[in-house]
Amino acid sequence: MVNQERLWQRLMALGEIGKQPSGGITRLSFTAEERAAKNLVRQWMIEAGLAVREDAVGNLIGRREGRDAGAAVVLAGSHLDSVLNGGNFDGPLGALSAVEAMQCMNEAGVQTDRPIEVIAFTDEEGARFRFGMIGSRALAGTLTLDELEATDSDGVRILDAMRQAGLNPAKISEAARSKGSVHAYVEVHIEQGKVLEQAGLPVGVVTGLAGPLWLKFTIIGQASHAGTTPMSMRHDALVGAAEILQVIEHETRKEERTVGTVGQFSVFPGGVNIIPGRVEFTLDLRDVDADTRQNVELRIRQQARQICDARGLALDVQVLQDIDPVHCSVDIQNTVYEACAALGLKAIPVVSGAGHDCMQLRDLCPVGMIFVRSKDGVSHHPDEWSSPEDCAAGAAVLYHTLLKLATV
Amino acid sequence: MVNQERLWQRLMALGEIGKQPSGGITRLSFTAEERAAKNLVRQWMIEAGLAVREDAVGNLIGRREGRDAGAAVVLAGSHLDSVLNGGNFDGPLGALSAVEAMQCMNEAGVQTDRPIEVIAFTDEEGARFRFGMIGSRALAGTLTLDELEATDSDGVRILDAMRQAGLNPAKISEAARSKGSVHAYVEVHIEQGKVLEQAGLPVGVVTGLAGPLWLKFTIIGQASHAGTTPMSMRHDALVGAAEILQVIEHETRKEERTVGTVGQFSVFPGGVNIIPGRVEFTLDLRDVDADTRQNVELRIRQQARQICDARGLALDVQVLQDIDPVHCSVDIQNTVYEACAALGLKAIPVVSGAGHDCMQLRDLCPVGMIFVRSKDGVSHHPDEWSSPEDCAAGAAVLYHTLLKLATV
Repeated sequence: MVNQERLWQRLMALGEIGKQPSGGITRLSFTAEERAAKNLVRQWMIEAGLAVREDAVGNLIGRREGRDAGAAVVLAGSHLDSVLNGGNFDGPLGALSAVEAMQCMNEAGVQTDRPIEVIAFTDEEGARFRFGMIGSRALAGTLTLDELEATDSDGVRILDAMRQAGLNPAKISEAARSKGSVHAYVEVHIEQGKVLEQAGLPVGVVTGLAGPLWLKFTIIGQASHAGTTPMSMRHDALVGAAEILQVIEHETRKEERTVGTVGQFSVFPGGVNIIPGRVEFTLDLRDVDADTRQNVELRIRQQARQICDARGLALDVQVLQDIDPVHCSVDIQNTVYEACAALGLKAIPVVSGAGHDCMQLRDLCPVGMIFVRSKDGVSHHPDEWSSPEDCAAGAAVLYHTLLKLATV
Repeated sequence: MVNQERLWQRLMALGEIGKQPSGGITRLSFTAEERAAKNLVRQWMIEAGLAVREDAVGNLIGRREGRDAGAAVVLAGSHLDSVLNGGNFDGPLGALSAVEAMQCMNEAGVQTDRPIEVIAFTDEEGARFRFGMIGSRALAGTLTLDELEATDSDGVRILDAMRQAGLNPAKISEAARSKGSVHAYVEVHIEQGKVLEQAGLPVGVVTGLAGPLWLKFTIIGQASHAGTTPMSMRHDALVGAAEILQVIEHETRKEERTVGTVGQFSVFPGGVNIIPGRVEFTLDLRDVDADTRQNVELRIRQQARQICDARGLALDVQVLQDIDPVHCSVDIQNTVYEACAALGLKAIPVVSGAGHDCMQLRDLCPVGMIFVRSKDGVSHHPDEWSSPEDCAAGAAVLYHTLLKLATV
């Protein structure tokens, strides 16, 4: 049904943009690499017969008309940005699967009732500004100008990066879709876990997504000379932070599915012979169960406070992002199962530990996701991999799912 | 005897170069700030009647002839570079005290047998290249071209930085002094500790210096997605490093005087939602007793290895610098006590937890140091402070010490 070779060649071609010496991919939002990726996908959208535009926040959109141009649209897509030194499938597979499904519909001369739009969302990962899902927030109408004040590691605000990319931040509300105008959103994505691999299945039907809470810890101690300050007189921000990291590991391990990750970690002033006076780090905490996540968060905060008090350190904890777990639409799940059945594919329910753009759309429309098997469960890493066959299976399931969702 | 006001004004004027918004000072080696500082001190050397030159490694030298121009020279000085966001006294006090002593000798029309040279050494702190005491190593003839391959955080080698500063790395051997050509080296420096403050005394006589060992730890794990990798399947380099930091604190605290500091700490790839795959950090370990320091080092290395093995992490430990503790010349100590007595100052013996340029000169000539009281023992920090009276006391003790040492 879908053209496996075409899909694979496009994935590989896209993977050349932002490729690092390590083999990993770095395509941060509003950079030349992200721009080049969108330009390339735009070409393929045109090849697929779609009407292409970009909205006020830079979301790349390719539209295929339905019989009823005024009907609520079916959206399908993903994102093209990556984390630092990430992989080739996280994001691109969803966008290119949707392009492939559209191209196949045109090749087969299929007509749908509803229009279908393929979308490549701007900045899903949040790797640059520690604030992700910018494009889907704008589409949902929840993105605020205040949030665009967030800065990257060079101090550049999202606002400024948008302007440099030719966008007008004052117009972000124009990217918002009205309630009722979107019938459904469906996304193909690699699983980034090992459940499908262990089950020996190419695709899975997502039941829900764990909500990521992002906290930023700032610990202030006293910078001082490494040679002349006795251990007993120190207020070493780094040693305090290290103790908190042990607590995070300990408390998350008590729960079955909670995961906690400190990914950004900076030490100041950063001299070999200076006791650190300040440490800043982020915590990414997730669970599919909101109560469990909150309990772990509270235990970490409480012990972090105790550690800092005992060491004479000041502690500040800011919430960078707090997203509740999301449940996928049961109707869409059933449609995906039917699509799998039509293709002779066995599929099982899976949960997502990762966040995805659909979380931002939860109040706009029903959402659903199709997972594709990941090799060794690895992602956000150059070794991220899904086979050509599995990628094509995901696109084929999406094709049938979209056909059904676009039928009134 | 010395001009307290002049010395203080010069300290304050020099403190304007490299001043940060925080009030701290950043003057890294081979930068415009360090150049400006040397140019200013050069002017004051000329005012003090010294013949000024810079040697092949950029050491700034002001010479005052003795009756016997061929006699072994007495050296006195310190350095002008600083750590990141450091203080105004660490280094400058020693260089400017020596300039002040020379200017007073000229004003008093005093003649000495031996020539005296004031020296401002290049890059004592090692803040830029994690490799310090470059000027004193060159003077001692121990600096090698290999060592100049060390790089700063931008990847610039010492070699390249020297060339950009107009120096020829191939000629560093020309900065070396021959055995017998230097009669003694004396340095005034702030204590950077609280012993003198607690004793209520302005100056102290240094008996020895703790040797700094600098190690670089590299821990390699597996970068992976923060949301989809269960805690039990992680090889998180940062959590392993945090556990090693706890060991460092625990093992150093077992000893009376050992201090261990992790000052530089970098986490890769550094995304909020990526499990760290690599961590690099430095350890600065010191004790005045060489055996104690070595025992602590071995215990830390052993436990770090066990932690990494248990977590499936690779560990590499490199020695960046390994300096044995140094004992100051008893003859110079006695000369300093006599100088204090002549000034009516009570002085006590002190040890240095910090490293200083004299450590590099140990095999070239007898070395000695005069410590000046530090407020709250703080240094390598904007709050670093010694009073105008105490600074002048240090310069006066240096004056008398140099007079005696320069007499055959």
